[in-house]
Amino acid sequence: MLLEIVRSTGLSHLSYFLGDGNEAAVIDPRRDYDIYLDIATREGLRITRIFETHRNEDYVIGSQALASATGAEIYHGRAIGFGYGNSVGDEDSFDFGNVRLRVLETPGHTFESISIALYDQAFGDDAVAVFTGDTLFIGDVGRADFFPDRAHEVAGLLYDSIFQKILPLGDQAILYPAHGAGSVCGSGMASREFSTLGYERRLNPRLQLDRDAFITSKVNEHHYYIPYFKRMEQLNQEGAGEFNALPRPRALTADQLAEHQKVGGLVLDTRDPEAIAGSFIPGSFAIPLHMVPAFAGWYLPYDRDIALLLRRDDEVEQAVRLLVRLGYDRISGFLAGGMMAWQTSGRHYDDVTAVHVDTLLKRINSGADYTLLDVRSLNEFKQGHLPDAQPIYVGELAERITEVSKTRPVTTFCGSGQRAIIAAALLKQHGIEQVEICLGSMQACKAVGCSVINEQAA
Amino acid sequence: MLLEIVRSTGLSHLSYFLGDGNEAAVIDPRRDYDIYLDIATREGLRITRIFETHRNEDYVIGSQALASATGAEIYHGRAIGFGYGNSVGDEDSFDFGNVRLRVLETPGHTFESISIALYDQAFGDDAVAVFTGDTLFIGDVGRADFFPDRAHEVAGLLYDSIFQKILPLGDQAILYPAHGAGSVCGSGMASREFSTLGYERRLNPRLQLDRDAFITSKVNEHHYYIPYFKRMEQLNQEGAGEFNALPRPRALTADQLAEHQKVGGLVLDTRDPEAIAGSFIPGSFAIPLHMVPAFAGWYLPYDRDIALLLRRDDEVEQAVRLLVRLGYDRISGFLAGGMMAWQTSGRHYDDVTAVHVDTLLKRINSGADYTLLDVRSLNEFKQGHLPDAQPIYVGELAERITEVSKTRPVTTFCGSGQRAIIAAALLKQHGIEQVEICLGSMQACKAVGCSVINEQAA
Amino acid sequence: MLLEIVRSTGLSHLSYFLGDGNEAAVIDPRRDYDIYLDIATREGLRITRIFETHRNEDYVIGSQALASATGAEIYHGRAIGFGYGNSVGDEDSFDFGNVRLRVLETPGHTFESISIALYDQAFGDDAVAVFTGDTLFIGDVGRADFFPDRAHEVAGLLYDSIFQKILPLGDQAILYPAHGAGSVCGSGMASREFSTLGYERRLNPRLQLDRDAFITSKVNEHHYYIPYFKRMEQLNQEGAGEFNALPRPRALTADQLAEHQKVGGLVLDTRDPEAIAGSFIPGSFAIPLHMVPAFAGWYLPYDRDIALLLRRDDEVEQAVRLLVRLGYDRISGFLAGGMMAWQTSGRHYDDVTAVHVDTLLKRINSGADYTLLDVRSLNEFKQGHLPDAQPIYVGELAERITEVSKTRPVTTFCGSGQRAIIAAALLKQHGIEQVEICLGSMQACKAVGCSVINEQAA
Amino acid sequence: MLLEIVRSTGLSHLSYFLGDGNEAAVIDPRRDYDIYLDIATREGLRITRIFETHRNEDYVIGSQALASATGAEIYHGRAIGFGYGNSVGDEDSFDFGNVRLRVLETPGHTFESISIALYDQAFGDDAVAVFTGDTLFIGDVGRADFFPDRAHEVAGLLYDSIFQKILPLGDQAILYPAHGAGSVCGSGMASREFSTLGYERRLNPRLQLDRDAFITSKVNEHHYYIPYFKRMEQLNQEGAGEFNALPRPRALTADQLAEHQKVGGLVLDTRDPEAIAGSFIPGSFAIPLHMVPAFAGWYLPYDRDIALLLRRDDEVEQAVRLLVRLGYDRISGFLAGGMMAWQTSGRHYDDVTAVHVDTLLKRINSGADYTLLDVRSLNEFKQGHLPDAQPIYVGELAERITEVSKTRPVTTFCGSGQRAIIAAALLKQHGIEQVEICLGSMQACKAVGCSVINEQAA
Repeated sequence: MLLEIVRSTGLSHLSYFLGDGNEAAVIDPRRDYDIYLDIATREGLRITRIFETHRNEDYVIGSQALASATGAEIYHGRAIGFGYGNSVGDEDSFDFGNVRLRVLETPGHTFESISIALYDQAFGDDAVAVFTGDTLFIGDVGRADFFPDRAHEVAGLLYDSIFQKILPLGDQAILYPAHGAGSVCGSGMASREFSTLGYERRLNPRLQLDRDAFITSKVNEHHYYIPYFKRMEQLNQEGAGEFNALPRPRALTADQLAEHQKVGGLVLDTRDPEAIAGSFIPGSFAIPLHMVPAFAGWYLPYDRDIALLLRRDDEVEQAVRLLVRLGYDRISGFLAGGMMAWQTSGRHYDDVTAVHVDTLLKRINSGADYTLLDVRSLNEFKQGHLPDAQPIYVGELAERITEVSKTRPVTTFCGSGQRAIIAAALLKQHGIEQVEICLGSMQACKAVGCSVINEQAA
Repeated sequence: MLLEIVRSTGLSHLSYFLGDGNEAAVIDPRRDYDIYLDIATREGLRITRIFETHRNEDYVIGSQALASATGAEIYHGRAIGFGYGNSVGDEDSFDFGNVRLRVLETPGHTFESISIALYDQAFGDDAVAVFTGDTLFIGDVGRADFFPDRAHEVAGLLYDSIFQKILPLGDQAILYPAHGAGSVCGSGMASREFSTLGYERRLNPRLQLDRDAFITSKVNEHHYYIPYFKRMEQLNQEGAGEFNALPRPRALTADQLAEHQKVGGLVLDTRDPEAIAGSFIPGSFAIPLHMVPAFAGWYLPYDRDIALLLRRDDEVEQAVRLLVRLGYDRISGFLAGGMMAWQTSGRHYDDVTAVHVDTLLKRINSGADYTLLDVRSLNEFKQGHLPDAQPIYVGELAERITEVSKTRPVTTFCGSGQRAIIAAALLKQHGIEQVEICLGSMQACKAVGCSVINEQAA
Repeated sequence: MLLEIVRSTGLSHLSYFLGDGNEAAVIDPRRDYDIYLDIATREGLRITRIFETHRNEDYVIGSQALASATGAEIYHGRAIGFGYGNSVGDEDSFDFGNVRLRVLETPGHTFESISIALYDQAFGDDAVAVFTGDTLFIGDVGRADFFPDRAHEVAGLLYDSIFQKILPLGDQAILYPAHGAGSVCGSGMASREFSTLGYERRLNPRLQLDRDAFITSKVNEHHYYIPYFKRMEQLNQEGAGEFNALPRPRALTADQLAEHQKVGGLVLDTRDPEAIAGSFIPGSFAIPLHMVPAFAGWYLPYDRDIALLLRRDDEVEQAVRLLVRLGYDRISGFLAGGMMAWQTSGRHYDDVTAVHVDTLLKRINSGADYTLLDVRSLNEFKQGHLPDAQPIYVGELAERITEVSKTRPVTTFCGSGQRAIIAAALLKQHGIEQVEICLGSMQACKAVGCSVINEQAA
Repeated sequence: MLLEIVRSTGLSHLSYFLGDGNEAAVIDPRRDYDIYLDIATREGLRITRIFETHRNEDYVIGSQALASATGAEIYHGRAIGFGYGNSVGDEDSFDFGNVRLRVLETPGHTFESISIALYDQAFGDDAVAVFTGDTLFIGDVGRADFFPDRAHEVAGLLYDSIFQKILPLGDQAILYPAHGAGSVCGSGMASREFSTLGYERRLNPRLQLDRDAFITSKVNEHHYYIPYFKRMEQLNQEGAGEFNALPRPRALTADQLAEHQKVGGLVLDTRDPEAIAGSFIPGSFAIPLHMVPAFAGWYLPYDRDIALLLRRDDEVEQAVRLLVRLGYDRISGFLAGGMMAWQTSGRHYDDVTAVHVDTLLKRINSGADYTLLDVRSLNEFKQGHLPDAQPIYVGELAERITEVSKTRPVTTFCGSGQRAIIAAALLKQHGIEQVEICLGSMQACKAVGCSVINEQAA
């Protein structure tokens, strides 16, 4: 019995390839599905079943594409109507080799969410593991904020699914969720990728609450709903269709990139913050590569051609994979030779000055007239921020741009400097000229021992 | 100026990626064209032009597929009508970066054959190299047997193309032909992949003949016309169309493979001769992997599904690439776990006993009653064979099977044992039961000092 | 917290790379330790600690080599004296990042065996996992046959270690043993690589016995003690020293290989059974590549140079890795071009005829005069064998060769044909000429429905 | 006959692997010689001979290391005494397979320089190629400035070697030199890697001069002698010894890197110019990765430990290879997590403001008080520079640092911005605080149409 975890970084999405005998099942496949075929070929297995733990909202699921390539059947929960595949429920189970997969209906995160218990028929009747989708994570539970009108109801469903369906499988069952730490689908997850129901039952902070406290805590949680979720939900319910091959963006000269911009194409700069700060192309969007999955969906439009500016040209495929998982297929080119190609073309570039946190502290003490724009999430902000910082979450910055003073210099600030560069580029796009960035941001603050304002403690 | 040679083994097909400035040209691209995109991405170049030196007969050219992926223009000779691309002639040249490519019409191998001279505009007006297609090879010249009614004419055209068009480019020009040693498109090629016009002018044996002697020698040559050539010619003239992705054959169990055979699918066994001899699946075709490009086109039908039996499961992709280059797309599966999966299934297997050349010599001396079937080409046979050997070229064995005695044991024999295993499997397919193979064959003969009959010396 | 499982196939050895914060620990490193450095570099971690769960007997541990490359400290149990490293016991624990590793003394398999419990300090005081070395496996427990004079004592220690030290960590703890299915260090392991203490407590058949029954069953077990174990134990206790780089065997011609044999070098043929059966080099040892770890130590001497004969030349590095893990460093060459190079050299080769199980059944019915040599283990033989089969375990065949009749034909037989080819080559080495092999062997028997004699059922 | 070109980027060093029959020769191997063993294994060849075209001055030759790994013999010219290997001269030739290698004594670049003519014995007596070391390049000839006291003599020797030894091999011979474009061993080389003696005879500008003009032009050339050359010459004459394995630098935290600096270690920052400009570690050396081979030898000391700061952690091995080729073995660590690890540690970083060339032009027009420091070579400077630029070659900047005003702002300037960042970091190291960089530099100038001062035209 082979179980291989396939990680999609950035989204922290975990999919699973489970094989035995001559067959295999894939749980929550990603859209660029070649990796599952590679495993199947290597192991001499045939993929015959695909399971979706729920209608995912944060990426395009690859079920239809993978089914088309393999002839496999697709299975998902029956609480909503899907435009493809088969609906299953508590009474369903699937056997191959020594594997038995048993469906558990576990609504809460969404109504059609299912979990899948895994049994090894060579041993016995206790579950050896359970795939919990977005219902139960390592150290956390799933979001339950997608149905604000029925907030209490779904929080209660989530509690019941965990306590009446999942935990009863036994302490011995290993936990395989659909996301690891860093996902937008939960917070407070462990950095660890391995746990069991027993461990979670005893030590997951969420599971120490009684039903009412659990519901209250879930109802009071704050999560961001990223605009592209809507598109993902629709695609994943109707069916995203086949996916033939990764787009192959073409090499562009600086002239061609400029022309691309001129005719409405956008430039996505995925370099590191200090490189962007050192020199960037006016008008470009900036998202350091590993943050593309988490932030592209906030503001990258689907109806414009994308040209990439990369740390190294050989990152093209990786960038393309990150984008197609979110449904961005119009990736037409990349600037060959990177930023130097732009610089040597004589075209104008812009920069953002880096400001050390010590300088911020001096400014605070001296009452300097500038905006310290803290682009972290509301939760992070409340847990500790610098005095006089203005909070606007990076994801909402574009739509709340008018809240930023255009007459004062702005210094962007976040956890480490990564989101701050996204924000800095957005400010520049919107005509704010005097922009600085605090590289290191709150982590540097803590390292040097800033005093911060904690609104939660208050 | 970057020049990268892309080799397709087995066919000994050489294609070329030539880049400078921000552009690149590809000469005679293969069908699985991903490698050209990889080079283009790595080098930051855009493929804008594709050249075909002629309507190739031994593989499916990837021009349309690559053009579709890149937007490049296709160029070929104008002596025949193509269903796609642009016709060019002596007056045409193409510049990018410091590159100048100048077209030379060089009929002979085919009427529409062109060569392409390469100039480095940074240096001067002498050609630095020439791409000669199938007109001039290293140590040989192209076949001129495709128009038997006009044999003298095309041989003369070939001579004139070489002496009036190509050699006048100067001794200094490097020679880049479309095939290296081992191709079915010529014989007597050097094992070396580098030469110049000057070197060939002085040392290529073909070029030491005068025009009449050249024509006579070409007219008297014997070449095999492999049946699949017809299909290739048609595809390459009409246009082979796009090529989206490599087929991904599915893992098969022994039962599934047997079912595949039962419903008309064929099994292609690409293991080494001694492994096939040791144990093989009844009814299967045997072609050691590296010989697939040279021999599949002789008798593998295009209208049956192919299942593969490999040395190792991880050779699937390589086998698929070799087959799709010949236009075989119906590759539906591979036996997972290899021959052992068949053996442990309890199904019957067959074998072929290996016979050392010393045993053959003893049989010859003792006048044993058996057939020594020499499956090498006519040319090879005439240059030296064992006494009483029966010559039938491996490619023609299926259609000449009635010439083989069914009542006597048969020992297959070739140059080294590779073609002999192809023949052995064919004999078994056609109901000849007592089959042996001489592993080592003529090379072993020579090593132990057999006396052979040389019909050419006579 | 990163946990990466490093598998050494064939030995089914599992080692573990555990990182958090900026540090990492490695548990039971293998001798070719480059993979741990690769992970450390990729993850930006420094390896600071190496743990040995016990003095391993089946491979050369890479602790000293890895420590030399990294500066890490080595830790092992204190019940025996080691020539290197630090001794630890129940009172010891080690923290880095959120990791806490706590030592448990768990004698039984060996006296100095330890297990290591893993805690995530970010969560709490329950173990999240435990590394059990050869004490507790998934579906089985470790061997306890290394101290035959104290058989009851060590079996009892093993029981107590499991029930008083390991299981009390709780059902929630994930189980990470030092071996997976296929190891010589246990039998009856699950094919699965994931389990928990809770799952084992409920379903591991060994753990369902009471202490006395457990001891009785362990004392009555039969295990083979492979001759090379002695060398491994000595090296691993005294310290195996540094390991600079993998040997790089040189390409050999057939002539050079023959010379190698002539001066006392041995040839190890790692091809598949049917390829060896089809044609092999007289005098060579035959072990299909994946079986090298399990069988080389039975009879390959350490004081002779080894030349390899491979399926493909590109398997050289893999073969070298498998051998150096067992302490074989004198790997001087490989036959370039494989078996064909030998065949075409004109040198003699031998073969072994394949016999289908149906033929065996006919022979049994007809009372044919031949030896059916069953080279499976005693346990396997007792669970079911063909009538009149002579049992000699493949590992003991060389020393018991006189038990095999030299006057009758011999057909070798095992589980699938893999060990049967090892045996066939040994018989040939020892002058037995009429050797056949049953490819498929017992698995084929079962597939076709042979009737077998089960001595255990009797 | 296999010829594989092995490129060492940055040095533009070309070494050659030439195989035929069962043997191979390597010409001018690099120190990290594993690639030659990989080719030999893949091709089934044994490396038996190593040729050095001369005592190289720009890298550590890997001859002794490779000979130790393979048992090959080393051959070099006899005009100087080497501490290892065999001396050869015009009368020597070496045969294997169809290869014949014939030695030509070709002094000039150095006294012991040899070239090696390649013949294919299957064809005839004309050279098919020649390996010319640093004597003749594509589009240029070798440096002849290493013996300033005998400048005319060695220039004459170089001329005679080319015209009396090399060119007489014939126009048809392919040219395989030891360096391609970008090397410090010549200038004006073609960007192309393929040429012939005939092409060079006609179009290489150097070969169009008569002997006297050639000598005059060579004597008047200006080349830089990089300080590390002295060490390379000594190692390569005495013998550099074995080379066991690449150093494996350890992952460092920001704290560990700071400690490394404190105890005398140096930091080498190999990121791109704009990333370094955006934020860098005070005190570090800056050399963009691909420029390490060309510039490290100017000022990186051999007696200090080196820690690396990389674009991405996975560039460690590449950086190590570039450094060990120059003899830098003390590479002890790399900053794990890159620059962000430093930024989030709260430690101070520095930056360099990017200045567009338009700003420079405005400053020139307005007579701004600042230093425009042009760090290109003297030749480049003379061919065109901005008004009032101060020329100091980047290689000499450290020792001529007192020539730079400490009281005025300094803007560094070069061809594209790459060398300008090296210079900027050096200025910062030497206490000059107000440093800016012109990204794009002269290439951007030309693109926007600056007017430049050309001292050669004057």
